[in-house]
Amino acid sequence: MLIRAGYDIRYETEAETPMLAMLSIHPSRNRDLVTPHRIVADPDVPMYDYLDAYGNVCTRVTVPEGGLTLSCDFTVEDDGLPDASAPDAAQLQVEDLPDDVLVFLLGSRYCETDRLSDTAWSRFGDIAPGWQRVQAIVDFTHDHIEFGYPYARPDKTAWDAHQEQKGVCRDFAHLAITLCRCMNIPARYCTGYLGDIGVPPADAPMDFSAWFEVYLGGSWHTFDARHNRPRIGRILMARGRDATDTAIATTFGAARLAGFHVHTDEVAAIG
Amino acid sequence: MLIRAGYDIRYETEAETPMLAMLSIHPSRNRDLVTPHRIVADPDVPMYDYLDAYGNVCTRVTVPEGGLTLSCDFTVEDDGLPDASAPDAAQLQVEDLPDDVLVFLLGSRYCETDRLSDTAWSRFGDIAPGWQRVQAIVDFTHDHIEFGYPYARPDKTAWDAHQEQKGVCRDFAHLAITLCRCMNIPARYCTGYLGDIGVPPADAPMDFSAWFEVYLGGSWHTFDARHNRPRIGRILMARGRDATDTAIATTFGAARLAGFHVHTDEVAAIG
Amino acid sequence: MLIRAGYDIRYETEAETPMLAMLSIHPSRNRDLVTPHRIVADPDVPMYDYLDAYGNVCTRVTVPEGGLTLSCDFTVEDDGLPDASAPDAAQLQVEDLPDDVLVFLLGSRYCETDRLSDTAWSRFGDIAPGWQRVQAIVDFTHDHIEFGYPYARPDKTAWDAHQEQKGVCRDFAHLAITLCRCMNIPARYCTGYLGDIGVPPADAPMDFSAWFEVYLGGSWHTFDARHNRPRIGRILMARGRDATDTAIATTFGAARLAGFHVHTDEVAAIG
Amino acid sequence: MLIRAGYDIRYETEAETPMLAMLSIHPSRNRDLVTPHRIVADPDVPMYDYLDAYGNVCTRVTVPEGGLTLSCDFTVEDDGLPDASAPDAAQLQVEDLPDDVLVFLLGSRYCETDRLSDTAWSRFGDIAPGWQRVQAIVDFTHDHIEFGYPYARPDKTAWDAHQEQKGVCRDFAHLAITLCRCMNIPARYCTGYLGDIGVPPADAPMDFSAWFEVYLGGSWHTFDARHNRPRIGRILMARGRDATDTAIATTFGAARLAGFHVHTDEVAAIG
Repeated sequence: MLIRAGYDIRYETEAETPMLAMLSIHPSRNRDLVTPHRIVADPDVPMYDYLDAYGNVCTRVTVPEGGLTLSCDFTVEDDGLPDASAPDAAQLQVEDLPDDVLVFLLGSRYCETDRLSDTAWSRFGDIAPGWQRVQAIVDFTHDHIEFGYPYARPDKTAWDAHQEQKGVCRDFAHLAITLCRCMNIPARYCTGYLGDIGVPPADAPMDFSAWFEVYLGGSWHTFDARHNRPRIGRILMARGRDATDTAIATTFGAARLAGFHVHTDEVAAIG
Repeated sequence: MLIRAGYDIRYETEAETPMLAMLSIHPSRNRDLVTPHRIVADPDVPMYDYLDAYGNVCTRVTVPEGGLTLSCDFTVEDDGLPDASAPDAAQLQVEDLPDDVLVFLLGSRYCETDRLSDTAWSRFGDIAPGWQRVQAIVDFTHDHIEFGYPYARPDKTAWDAHQEQKGVCRDFAHLAITLCRCMNIPARYCTGYLGDIGVPPADAPMDFSAWFEVYLGGSWHTFDARHNRPRIGRILMARGRDATDTAIATTFGAARLAGFHVHTDEVAAIG
Repeated sequence: MLIRAGYDIRYETEAETPMLAMLSIHPSRNRDLVTPHRIVADPDVPMYDYLDAYGNVCTRVTVPEGGLTLSCDFTVEDDGLPDASAPDAAQLQVEDLPDDVLVFLLGSRYCETDRLSDTAWSRFGDIAPGWQRVQAIVDFTHDHIEFGYPYARPDKTAWDAHQEQKGVCRDFAHLAITLCRCMNIPARYCTGYLGDIGVPPADAPMDFSAWFEVYLGGSWHTFDARHNRPRIGRILMARGRDATDTAIATTFGAARLAGFHVHTDEVAAIG
Repeated sequence: MLIRAGYDIRYETEAETPMLAMLSIHPSRNRDLVTPHRIVADPDVPMYDYLDAYGNVCTRVTVPEGGLTLSCDFTVEDDGLPDASAPDAAQLQVEDLPDDVLVFLLGSRYCETDRLSDTAWSRFGDIAPGWQRVQAIVDFTHDHIEFGYPYARPDKTAWDAHQEQKGVCRDFAHLAITLCRCMNIPARYCTGYLGDIGVPPADAPMDFSAWFEVYLGGSWHTFDARHNRPRIGRILMARGRDATDTAIATTFGAARLAGFHVHTDEVAAIG
């Protein structure tokens, strides 16, 4: 399957403002590109990339006085399969986890494992470890939080989402991740493109999406507490402990988001 | 100057409990060792080390049923100088910061930059950028928080410390770090040995200490909001975004801290 | 299966001599340890470890005037299976190889791909790509080189081994690796323990062994051009481009190897 | 000072040919860009970057049947100063070198330290360690090798250059690097742009240049055995052990270099 995706995003500023953007696809998808993936800046200011500690592509750019539009449009090959299910994937003992996975058991800015541990153990302690327990956590999260764009706010944490029972996809992910970590299941936050391939078209404007991955049976598996059903065509952009590590744009100074269009569609051919 | 340091720490458990310990000196001090640095486990269970994303040595060990004592005793060469002052170190523009420094501007588990930004700008926005601004933040933090061991709790954040005005050295560090980051000054959390060399002996049992570093003028500089004075003989163990990344021991299961003795003393010779 | 392994190695020197040693097991085997893995130095001088760019544990130590004995004795759990065969593992197109695998297609100190390319293509160009081609390279190398300890010398390269047709296990590995790389098959050098489990006992004193791995079908596979048969009980110590990256000990100054005993045996229980 | 630099390079092929290119500036110069640095491919095929173990930007691209032109044109800010001299920079004892520097003491594909050690010690053993010894090595190399483009060949090593006494800038670098390493001075290979700023214009077409760096007194210093004089305006592209790690383009299959133009000039303003 071919998927064409990209964005046009505009920031307006009154003074030069440095920005850290994570607006590239994740390096793990680079070899699937069938057209160039190129971020176009208007005006054409210098930009450059580096990799963060999680292997994500970070772009540094200074938004000039007035503003900046960043655009991207590319096509990737995708296997077209829904998220894989692996109900037999076992939960590894902590002592058997690879070294570099351990960090995804710890707390992070939006995932206060220390505050939700009792809740997690009381709700999920009696459920069999492994896939079943993760699914129970996802079911709980999916039902516990009411989705609504107005409920988004930048400092909302998993604890807040648990208390307020309202949120957006990132809050669903944060809560489910936190509960998994409390149960000693490594979990990491993912962000990227997710179109409506194979599902009824959404009536809201397209946005980037947040989901998460858990480490079971020796590999990482995709879950999505917002939708709670296997989906087709996720194109990963960044992974990390939580939304802090994967913010689409972090500006160091005042910048107004003045335009935001994301597209992700199955296409028949490169065009 | 020679410093002899180490610890005896005992955990008691009722079942095998995996542990992640950060009880080694930081690799940057390895070349200063004049005796072996070796963690001795009693009973003599397998342990091994790996490096985390911040370059810290992490030790993996499973505490056997009953418990485990970890001990260490070593001697390092130290320059014997107090923390250096560099009042002319300039605050770099964000666009001039090295790529790998940017992460220390972001929020983290115990450093909610999003919640303290207004406070920071209203208090420190009028102070000249650079060393002077950091010192103002340290002065404020030092005066704002009342020190007391009973005020320690594992989920206390910079925001909490700011509101409650009570805490321990880690809370001083978290608050000062958060305020620095809000002002676009990269700041990272440090933990290690700090004895009473050159200061009156403390009347409390020795513990590990927390301080922080800021990036000014192209390099990292040490500050200590708890003591707010240059000190001699810091031996770094771990650095990271905050206390999450540098916990002395993270146990995955129930473990009771049954013994805790840390020593750090100037010595005349290896013995 | 439990395997007990280790060594006693002695260097004698007339002056303090810095040494870089790779005498630990590879981190990928750390979780298999059932007893501590500890390098004991006599005299008990300071030593410390770091990781090189290939993920190997490197130990830095200064051999004191007179000399130094390094000893190790540990037990690991092993699956007890012979090297796996995967005749269907496909040779990936270069454009489909992961980024971090590409370096294992390039030339290196002892693997002069530029000098052996014509030889490789004329001999193996007609053989089907993938497992079969690697096996043909291993068969050729195994037959082409006559084994003999006296044929070892530190500056012998794959080209030299090909011309002289004499060598030791490291020369077999270097030649096979070079021929694989010439055919666009990523190949890396391995060193470690290899006892005579499941084969007739050797009549020579035990040494560390060299073998290699190739990247086929999305993962690394073990081959051994010296023995050219599946073996049981390899315990990896280090991996790299060639023997330069994995030398047991590199001394910066004159040092005489005055003792060298390696042991690797299946055992019934920890002892 | 502003420097405008770039290239137009064309490869012709008869079949799709994967390529690994190192045609970007080194990340350490990214913050000096005053215009975008963008590699333009004609035809506009997908390309993507990754970082190798030395921190260089590597570009992966498949040259389509027929061929591919890669072009780049950018402007950077430069301090305009000639290579710094630091005659007091001391040679560190091996035991005092940072861990990540040690690799630059070892042999590599084109730097056979094992074969040139006796030569190095007999020539330079009586010269004071440090800057003076490096300068003596550079003087020797500069005088020992006769420069000439026809002397270039891809498999020429430092040993070959030493024996044949003929070569190009990469051979000068390889020989000087090897001699430095033999004397326990860490040395690494550099490639990049070097125009004729401040020197009489060369009568040859511009090419990329090779030089090297040594680690003295706690930092890296630039030397150039080809020119043996401080130069202005080096723009680093890649660093590594030797030319293996820094090849402008490695093609996996037949490709003909059909066009090669490099430009590097001081400019008064962005144009």
